[in-house]
Amino acid sequence: MGTYEVPPSIAVRVLPDKLRAVTEAVFRACDVPAEAAARGADVLVYADLRGIDSHGVSIKLRDYVNKYRSGELNPRPKIEIVRQTPATAVVDADRGLGLMVASQAMSMAMDKARQTGVGVVSVRNAGHVGALGYYARMAALNDMIGWTMAVSAAPKSMLPTWCAEPLLGTNPLAFAAPAHHESPFVFDAAMATVAGNKLEILQKLGLPLPGGWVANPDGTPNLTGGEYQDFVVDSKPYQLPLGSTRERGSHKGYGLALMVDILSCNLSFAPGCAALSDRRGGHFVAAYDIAAFGDVEAFKNDMDASLRRLREARPMPGQERVLYAGLPESEIAAERTAKGIPLHPEVVDWFRTFGAEHGLGLELK
Amino acid sequence: MGTYEVPPSIAVRVLPDKLRAVTEAVFRACDVPAEAAARGADVLVYADLRGIDSHGVSIKLRDYVNKYRSGELNPRPKIEIVRQTPATAVVDADRGLGLMVASQAMSMAMDKARQTGVGVVSVRNAGHVGALGYYARMAALNDMIGWTMAVSAAPKSMLPTWCAEPLLGTNPLAFAAPAHHESPFVFDAAMATVAGNKLEILQKLGLPLPGGWVANPDGTPNLTGGEYQDFVVDSKPYQLPLGSTRERGSHKGYGLALMVDILSCNLSFAPGCAALSDRRGGHFVAAYDIAAFGDVEAFKNDMDASLRRLREARPMPGQERVLYAGLPESEIAAERTAKGIPLHPEVVDWFRTFGAEHGLGLELK
Repeated sequence: MGTYEVPPSIAVRVLPDKLRAVTEAVFRACDVPAEAAARGADVLVYADLRGIDSHGVSIKLRDYVNKYRSGELNPRPKIEIVRQTPATAVVDADRGLGLMVASQAMSMAMDKARQTGVGVVSVRNAGHVGALGYYARMAALNDMIGWTMAVSAAPKSMLPTWCAEPLLGTNPLAFAAPAHHESPFVFDAAMATVAGNKLEILQKLGLPLPGGWVANPDGTPNLTGGEYQDFVVDSKPYQLPLGSTRERGSHKGYGLALMVDILSCNLSFAPGCAALSDRRGGHFVAAYDIAAFGDVEAFKNDMDASLRRLREARPMPGQERVLYAGLPESEIAAERTAKGIPLHPEVVDWFRTFGAEHGLGLELK
Repeated sequence: MGTYEVPPSIAVRVLPDKLRAVTEAVFRACDVPAEAAARGADVLVYADLRGIDSHGVSIKLRDYVNKYRSGELNPRPKIEIVRQTPATAVVDADRGLGLMVASQAMSMAMDKARQTGVGVVSVRNAGHVGALGYYARMAALNDMIGWTMAVSAAPKSMLPTWCAEPLLGTNPLAFAAPAHHESPFVFDAAMATVAGNKLEILQKLGLPLPGGWVANPDGTPNLTGGEYQDFVVDSKPYQLPLGSTRERGSHKGYGLALMVDILSCNLSFAPGCAALSDRRGGHFVAAYDIAAFGDVEAFKNDMDASLRRLREARPMPGQERVLYAGLPESEIAAERTAKGIPLHPEVVDWFRTFGAEHGLGLELK
């Protein structure tokens, strides 16, 4: 459901290194320095590799290019540490794209965790964060537990429970923990029933929205579903918090989203954070060094056993197996690493045109 | 929905100090030392005061007494710090009741946060944690942000998405942040659609379960609701993760519950944590000292503005106002502090009988 599948008959398969290289070239053409361009491209291609196409090159790169051109994003931000202790920091990202900012913030949190056991960093004035699980997984690849949260600078789209005004974003939360032989646990989810751009993907495909995802224009939860355009208020539908209705726990999705807001925006003293609106994006990242808590090998062995127990559990009728967060994404990554990432020919054309405009050869075919 | 309302016609109103004193006397009669008995009673009465009756004296105290009698709980645990750094600790609770253990763990986390900005404590071998928001709110009352999570030692009751085996508990998560004039944000929720004992309360009241809360015995989500006993497998129904179905995001409730499990059990190296079953309860507490991130007064002013914006937002048709987590509970607490906590006469009788058996006068009328 989360994947925007390019029809196999027209898909152009591109190997990840190639896609990473052309994406990096696009960032550099937007005046992003080399090292940051490489980091940003890696986050985007991570999403494409793992089937999180809604946050990958095809869907997001053009939007970032437009924001660099309009000046909304700063290609050469002066990232400033506003305040820090050995275990904590507040960072001002100076309108840098979240892809580069959040990976830098996670590196900082991991450095702190190596010293004190824990690193906690709250970031203000950051652009779109991309696939949030990337940064949490960075910690897991370094034998740490990782958290990431983000509030987007986009107009708010989610209704608090019982509310008719969209005062919150979909405020995603990611968490990762390492294992030995099993794929690491990498959880990455909006605190709405679905990530916002999944609605747009269904709209583009001409498919109706399922019940429980969005509200009727008066703010009441819609449980029957319907056409995207029937739910648009101003520019887009109002989304419902995870749980959909109060009876089924939407106050929990709402509360979790507000928690993400507080840690990403209030704790970083983001401009406008008090008003819950028009605030520039904030992030929250944290890393816990497992070695500060106990034996790393024992932890990873235990994680192996827990994740295997889930993977081998008896499925309900109609399902072949039980999954855990990070497992299907790892399987897709293995397949796409070998066979290439399926791109729509229109995306391939976009790279070619962009390359021609900038005197670069960005041929993917 | 969360409240087990005693019918007003028969309710006995008891002032909180009085209820706290008799509850403390019951703990002491179970051989709990005075200071720990006072701490445990405060957590229970906190729940009763705030209308979280499912975690208060009426519903939980007898269960704790039975577990002290059976030896499952240790009234005089030797709480051991297994490993620690200035910012982190792993604690073995030696089968102490979670009410006392978690408040002690939060005190430890706050002490660490005062030194390093952050304190993170994972606890193993702990009994039932009670109203989880209590410990998160402890941090908020000290100008900190507080987290608490818990995994119960009770038999697992929640199904992972698509799974027919109950491999997880309902694994609650609490989070609190302070404000100035507004009631603090205190979020406290099971990562299932509802806390487990709310099912039992509906059963006792002879009311059907709503759709989306539990699974059919084969593990498929039940969306129509029905009688409690129709869903019992072994001793109780299988609960669904927050989201209820995969389409509406139950993989998010499942993922959040597994995150709680990893932080509370795997990170504390709890016995049996690898197998995801029969594990003794674990807790996770963390405190962030707001002063390490910026100006505390500015943070609390911003929180006031954010929470007021929510409280004054336009409600959807059919609702009078918009709430935030912690607001209705604070209002109920104000009323119950003045008028007393409504108890069922049967609870008053239980205290009298327990008192007579132990040579104590525990009269509440």
